[in-house]
This record gives sequence, C-alpha cells and structure tokens, in this order.
Amino acid sequence: MKAFRVEVRVMPRATLLDPQGRAVEHALHALGFDEVTAVRIGKHLVLDVTAPSKDEAAARARAMCDRLLANPVTEDYSVLVEAA
Amino acid sequence: MKAFRVEVRVMPRATLLDPQGRAVEHALHALGFDEVTAVRIGKHLVLDVTAPSKDEAAARARAMCDRLLANPVTEDYSVLVEAA
Repeated sequence: MKAFRVEVRVMPRATLLDPQGRAVEHALHALGFDEVTAVRIGKHLVLDVTAPSKDEAAARARAMCDRLLANPVTEDYSVLVEAA
Repeated sequence: MKAFRVEVRVMPRATLLDPQGRAVEHALHALGFDEVTAVRIGKHLVLDVTAPSKDEAAARARAMCDRLLANPVTEDYSVLVEAA
C-alpha cells in the first residue's frame, strides 16, 4: 500500500444558481473590484489516503464523492491524485 | 481589457485544527473508507474577471483574497489565472 494525496474539487453545477457566489460578487463590487463579472464558490478537499495504486486511489475517491462528499443533484466534482 | 478565469483555493492553515475536515474523516470511516488518514476542507472559488494582462489579473485576485476572500490569520490561498 502506498500513500497518495487526493485533491477533490466540488462545485455547484453550472446550470444552477450559486447564491453564495452572488453574495461574494456583490461584496467584491462594494469593495471596488468592479472587474469581477462572475463568482462561483465550491469546496476544495485534500484527502490523505493509502491504496495499492494511483488508479485505485482515484476510484475510491470518486466513490467517496458519490457517497458523501458531493451532492449528485446539485454539484459536480473532479478528482486529482498524486503520490504523497 | 481581456477576460480571465481565476481559480482561487483557500485552505485552513496546516498548523490549525480543521474540525470540518475531522468530521468528514469520521463520516468516511463510518462508511467503510478506512484508507483515509486525513481530510482538510477549504473553499474553491472561480472568478471571471477582466484585466489588461494575466499578471494584473493575478495581482487583483490576490488583493481580493487579502481584503475579503481569505482570513489572513487562519487561511492560506493560492491563485491560478488562465485566459477565459
């Protein structure tokens, strides 16, 4: 078993409203950052895992996203695995 | 002015406790994902901005992090800019 670091990005789906992102966009405009035209906000998770291979670590991480880390109705995720 | 997409990652500092990450780690163990040895959770922001250059877009994004997007006491951030 080897150690891997898995970076998981979970974002609201592009077709859905993102009220948190809209709120931050308004706050940035109020601070004078008028060049911002859109903001979307999601989660970034860093998981330390052990697995027999990089492919297996990625498969398990995707299973974690499907089971717990991401909401399949409202969120998309991406998984990136590197040796720890 | 050109359009850029800025990816901002905001994570709790490595030296600080991350209670949200610990809670997710325990939940993953309860679901049978025992290979997970650590979880840290932060934010991922995607900003659409206009700027005269890529360097200027990155500088403005770092200013936004310092002013609003990240807590300088408890969080670290990284900024990645690409042409939109």
